Amino acid sequence: MSQGKFIVIEGLEGAGKSSAVAYVEAWLRARGIQTIEKTREPGGTPLAERMRTLVKEVHDEPLTMQAELLLMYAARVQLVENRIKPALAAGHWVIGDRHDLSSQAYQGGGRGISASLISQIKQAVLGDFAPDLTLYLDIDPALGLARASARGELDRIEQEQLSFFERTRARYQQLAAEDPRIFTVQAQLTPEQVRAQIHQILEQQLCIPG
Amino acid sequence: MSQGKFIVIEGLEGAGKSSAVAYVEAWLRARGIQTIEKTREPGGTPLAERMRTLVKEVHDEPLTMQAELLLMYAARVQLVENRIKPALAAGHWVIGDRHDLSSQAYQGGGRGISASLISQIKQAVLGDFAPDLTLYLDIDPALGLARASARGELDRIEQEQLSFFERTRARYQQLAAEDPRIFTVQAQLTPEQVRAQIHQILEQQLCIPG
Repeated sequence: MSQGKFIVIEGLEGAGKSSAVAYVEAWLRARGIQTIEKTREPGGTPLAERMRTLVKEVHDEPLTMQAELLLMYAARVQLVENRIKPALAAGHWVIGDRHDLSSQAYQGGGRGISASLISQIKQAVLGDFAPDLTLYLDIDPALGLARASARGELDRIEQEQLSFFERTRARYQQLAAEDPRIFTVQAQLTPEQVRAQIHQILEQQLCIPG
Repeated sequence: MSQGKFIVIEGLEGAGKSSAVAYVEAWLRARGIQTIEKTREPGGTPLAERMRTLVKEVHDEPLTMQAELLLMYAARVQLVENRIKPALAAGHWVIGDRHDLSSQAYQGGGRGISASLISQIKQAVLGDFAPDLTLYLDIDPALGLARASARGELDRIEQEQLSFFERTRARYQQLAAEDPRIFTVQAQLTPEQVRAQIHQILEQQLCIPG
C-alpha cells in the first residue's frame, strides 16, 4: 500500500482555495490515486462542524478571542484524531481546506494572540502532527474580500475590518517564508496562471510512482 | 459600594453541590447581601451552555480528551469575561457551581492530562483570575455516584468508570491541601453536619460588615 500524504490549501477569504482543492484532487486522480479525502477547517467531523458553527455564526454574546482560539483547536484535534490520522494510516491522501496555519495567521496575526501561546496549545493537542505540503494562496485582502462578498453573506470572522486581514496576510507571508514545507502561490493572477503554479509545485514536491 | 466576591463550590457528582450553593446564598442574604449571581460550569452564558452540551452529551463520534479540555476552557473564558467579571465589577457576589478546579481534577486527575499543560492554558486564557474562596465537598466516589444516579440518567462524563472518579478525587484532595483558599468539607456526613461545616468556613473566611 502506498503512503498517503496530507496536503493543505491555505489563504484569505476569496483567495481561491476551493478551486485549488479541486485542482489538487484532479492532479492526484490523473496520477492514479483514487482514495482521496477532503476536509475543511474548522469542521470535518460531526462534532467539529458544531464547533465551526459556534465560531462562524454571528452571536448576541461576544465570542472572546481566547474561546475562539480554543474552539479552533478543539475542532482541529477532533478532525486530526478521528479522520485525518485514520485516513493516512489506511494509505489515503487527504486534501485540507485550511489547517493549523490558519490559526497562526488569523488568531495570531489577525487577533494578536501570542505566537508562543498558540504554539504551546498546538504542541499540547497535536504534538508533531503536520501537513506534508501546504500551498498558501497569497492575495491582497481587499481583492479577496471583494470576491468573497460577491459570493454571499459574510460570516462573523469575514465581517472583520480590512486591517484584521492585512495583519493575517502579513503573518501568513512570514510563516510561509520560514517553513520549507509551505509554498506560496500568487493568487491574484488568472485562474490558468494559478493552476500552472499549483501544477508546478505538485510536480516538484510530490514523488508519485507512475 | 461593597466589594463582591466569587465563591466556588466544587466536588464530585453527588457530593451535594446544589445544596451547598443554596446554603451559601441563604447565608449571604441573611447578612444583607442582595445582589448575588449564581453560575454553573461548564456553562452560564448562551455560548458556554452550547459548549456544555458538546461535552455532556453522549455522541457517536468520540470526543477526544484534548477537545474536552479546550471546550471546558472556552466555556470558562466566556463565563468569566461576559458574566463573572462584570458582576464583580458591579459589586455583586457570585456563587459558582464548579470552576477551574474541576478541570484540574477531572481532566488532569481523571483523564491524566499533564498539570503543566492545563496550567499553561489556564494562565493563557484566564490570567490570574481566581475565586476568593472555594469549598471542596469531599465524598467517596461510589457514594456520590450512587446519589447522582438515583437522581436520573448519567451524562457522558458521569458514565466513566469508578477509577476515573477515584483519580479525580485524589487530585481534588491534593489541590485542596496545597491551596489556602480551598476549604474541604466532609460531604458524607448528614445534611445538618455539612451545613454546619460550610457555616463555620463562611463565618471564619468572609468578613461582611454587619
